[in-house]
Amino acid sequence: MSEKQKKPQKLKARLPRGFVDRDAADIRALTEMTAKIRAVYEHYGFDPVETPLFEYTDALGKFLPDSDRPNEGVFSLQDDDDQWMSLRYDLTAPLARHVAENFNEIQLPYRTYRAGYVFRNEKPGPGRFRQFMQFDADTVGAAGVQADAEMCMMFADTMEALGIARGDYVIRVNNRKVLDGMLEVVGLGGEENAARRLNALRALDKFDKFGIPGVRELLGAGRKDESGDFTKGVGLDPAGIELLVGVLDTSSFGDNLETVASLDNRFGQNERAREGVEELEQIAKLVASAGYEADRIKVDPSCVRGLEYYTGPVFEAELQFAVTNEKGEKVVFGSVGGGGRYDGLVSRFMGQPVPATGFSIGVSRLMTALKNLGKLGQDDIVAPVLVTVMDGDIESMGRYQRFTQALRAAGIRAEMYQGNWKKFGNQLKYADRRGAPVAIIQGGDERAGGLVQIKDLIEGKRLSGEIEDNIAWREARVAQVSVPEAELVARVREILDAQAEDRARQG
Amino acid sequence: MSEKQKKPQKLKARLPRGFVDRDAADIRALTEMTAKIRAVYEHYGFDPVETPLFEYTDALGKFLPDSDRPNEGVFSLQDDDDQWMSLRYDLTAPLARHVAENFNEIQLPYRTYRAGYVFRNEKPGPGRFRQFMQFDADTVGAAGVQADAEMCMMFADTMEALGIARGDYVIRVNNRKVLDGMLEVVGLGGEENAARRLNALRALDKFDKFGIPGVRELLGAGRKDESGDFTKGVGLDPAGIELLVGVLDTSSFGDNLETVASLDNRFGQNERAREGVEELEQIAKLVASAGYEADRIKVDPSCVRGLEYYTGPVFEAELQFAVTNEKGEKVVFGSVGGGGRYDGLVSRFMGQPVPATGFSIGVSRLMTALKNLGKLGQDDIVAPVLVTVMDGDIESMGRYQRFTQALRAAGIRAEMYQGNWKKFGNQLKYADRRGAPVAIIQGGDERAGGLVQIKDLIEGKRLSGEIEDNIAWREARVAQVSVPEAELVARVREILDAQAEDRARQG
Repeated sequence: MSEKQKKPQKLKARLPRGFVDRDAADIRALTEMTAKIRAVYEHYGFDPVETPLFEYTDALGKFLPDSDRPNEGVFSLQDDDDQWMSLRYDLTAPLARHVAENFNEIQLPYRTYRAGYVFRNEKPGPGRFRQFMQFDADTVGAAGVQADAEMCMMFADTMEALGIARGDYVIRVNNRKVLDGMLEVVGLGGEENAARRLNALRALDKFDKFGIPGVRELLGAGRKDESGDFTKGVGLDPAGIELLVGVLDTSSFGDNLETVASLDNRFGQNERAREGVEELEQIAKLVASAGYEADRIKVDPSCVRGLEYYTGPVFEAELQFAVTNEKGEKVVFGSVGGGGRYDGLVSRFMGQPVPATGFSIGVSRLMTALKNLGKLGQDDIVAPVLVTVMDGDIESMGRYQRFTQALRAAGIRAEMYQGNWKKFGNQLKYADRRGAPVAIIQGGDERAGGLVQIKDLIEGKRLSGEIEDNIAWREARVAQVSVPEAELVARVREILDAQAEDRARQG
Repeated sequence: MSEKQKKPQKLKARLPRGFVDRDAADIRALTEMTAKIRAVYEHYGFDPVETPLFEYTDALGKFLPDSDRPNEGVFSLQDDDDQWMSLRYDLTAPLARHVAENFNEIQLPYRTYRAGYVFRNEKPGPGRFRQFMQFDADTVGAAGVQADAEMCMMFADTMEALGIARGDYVIRVNNRKVLDGMLEVVGLGGEENAARRLNALRALDKFDKFGIPGVRELLGAGRKDESGDFTKGVGLDPAGIELLVGVLDTSSFGDNLETVASLDNRFGQNERAREGVEELEQIAKLVASAGYEADRIKVDPSCVRGLEYYTGPVFEAELQFAVTNEKGEKVVFGSVGGGGRYDGLVSRFMGQPVPATGFSIGVSRLMTALKNLGKLGQDDIVAPVLVTVMDGDIESMGRYQRFTQALRAAGIRAEMYQGNWKKFGNQLKYADRRGAPVAIIQGGDERAGGLVQIKDLIEGKRLSGEIEDNIAWREARVAQVSVPEAELVARVREILDAQAEDRARQG
């Protein structure tokens, strides 16, 4: 009994909730994707800069410094000197800290990009992780809307560089000042209406999902969804509701300037809205003069970015092609990132205003989209050639190792079998599971003759399969040859080339 | 008074101690370096796999599960469900967890690599950071020393792929069993001698630094350094000391097999040492048969890897060229990474033994070394062409933006000035600080004539400098030209090409 209790408990191998391991295909797809994004940003004259994963909690700006345990939403811990540090929850707040800390050395406008992990201390769910990657670009120290216009164009160019066709994406642009002004006009101005204002913004944001009728309900008494759940509405009067929903549907407008004019007609009397409308107009004109029309960059009054810190233009990249969701419904893929102007974020640290604008791409979500479109994951990395082990004495092992190194020296991915060599079946099973294209075999007889066997594992698989529907293929290769040791590398190269040709032919 | 107190305190922009931001040159150097390392690992048939930054603290295996606050050495925090999680302190423990968790899906031997940040909750110091990058490769499920031999060869190939000349690096190999056996022979076996054994290993590890005399002192009564600080010794008797130090200096041995024979002569009577010596002999023979002699992979009894979890062969990559340390002394650069066999690390989670071997490169340290050797940091990324802003009306801005996009469309890095355009001097200052190669200028007069000015900023700088010592240069380019708008891209391309030619000529 006490024996049993003393037995050391076996450690359980499991990841904390909301975290995942990433496999080779995923990592390679990510590398391919981020390289394409980076190329666009570099082209636009942006340079990389990186901050560490920790910041002082107060620098993230989400919590009161006297909060006892600032752990809600972010991962926080106390340093030796009792100061609270947190893992960054986005890449914007750390950039603001970086700029403020190095303000005298930095040449403004400061144009930078960065990819990195961010963390959310939230309840994980399907597709919701507590560690994920963002890829951001920002211009700090540029007050004019031309900087926001550039962000929209760069966002659009990024989508196309990733292979997303024009029409399959759109960069939606709006302005926080317009939204603020609109809500002021319908009587939701002032500190006392902050909560209702937030709900009104949320309602406008649902236009994509519920259409005008749904938004009407959410702005009015409330909305019951199919499951019977009721969302309490903002309680606006019908006139206010109609004024707001009147700008949501832009489908009748020929171009961005018509949308802007309609906003101006309805809300231009409000000073704040008017300021925002003018900015939207300038953005629309700037991007149009560089050839970006509403099919790529679209002024869209239903574009609402949630983050509190935006102060002017906001934008969002939406993928417009349909996918099937977990309920089996066809839905538009939706947002893969967004951003906007955040003039106050750096200033928090400074005695002076520091305007800034930028956007952030949700890397995992974009990757899912690209996989849906078949634009990623065509992993062209060939698995290594396997040099099998027939004899375990040091002399033979050395010879197998030499074959392996000779292949590598010729630029061929290769490995010698490192498991228990005594069961040869295991080695072939390994080669099969690994997708090895070629196996090298040398037993005692071959050794005596200075020969080595080369097995074409892809051709072998094909020959053992149905060959009828492969009439377009050239004459079957020989699946196994025995060649002098000196010819090993050249013959393996030939087989790999032939396999590559077959792959290319199959598309 | 109360006014003053109420005034919101300006937030201080600073990084937590021991963390750093990384600039563009650093990031580009890192990207270049890791790409070269990755290419070697891929060649050897290794695939990428990544784990998240958090693990359950018990999975890291450093702490008792009942420890109240497991925060020493690692960054830890308690999850909602009260389980302790920690940021990984290396990439090996998380790999062990990953393998154990996915054991049924993983094909052994499992050959993977990964680069990522690791964290140490330690007192930071000069060159000592609390977040840094490691780049690891591991083979899990391979019990034979051929897997360790492969690690050594891959380590050596990596050094050469990075441009480190043969002779400037060496992969030192030893065996934990040999070290254990040696210490047993001199009377330091058994649980009761664990602390003295650790000190003895530390003493042997100092051979590089203090030579035989210093190690003698540390194994004996103790050693006083130049500053007068005294390190208490292990207290071995003279015979034991001589037995141990006798194997440290391998300079008289012609090859690895002579070193192995000397170890065998001195310690072969000890069973554990003998086992380790045999493994070393096999490794030496295997790497020799693939052409790796002691100038690249060297059996070295003074190689002691600190980590507790090693169970067999251990290895270390040492850079042998001299650098000047902070005291102005010439010293050997030293270790840039190491590894070894850790057969127990995965087994902790399993009911069965799972052998494994691998090594880890300290990325920042290696980067410092490569910079010392001039093998990195030749940043060939040209700063963007600057399209200046002379007029701020939307029509002109649109035109400048169009020029910028035309340059980008032609593959030229370009940006329109995004700061306050009204002070033209600021724009030229920006171009200068940014290192812009070319500036584009179009004021009202040029606009009227459909012209645009192109300023060659590199040539301009050269012409304003001493031109005497540039006799080898071709006839000076014109530093400024005025061309029709339609020729803008072609002329900029010409200037950039000429600048690239100059750079190439200057080497």
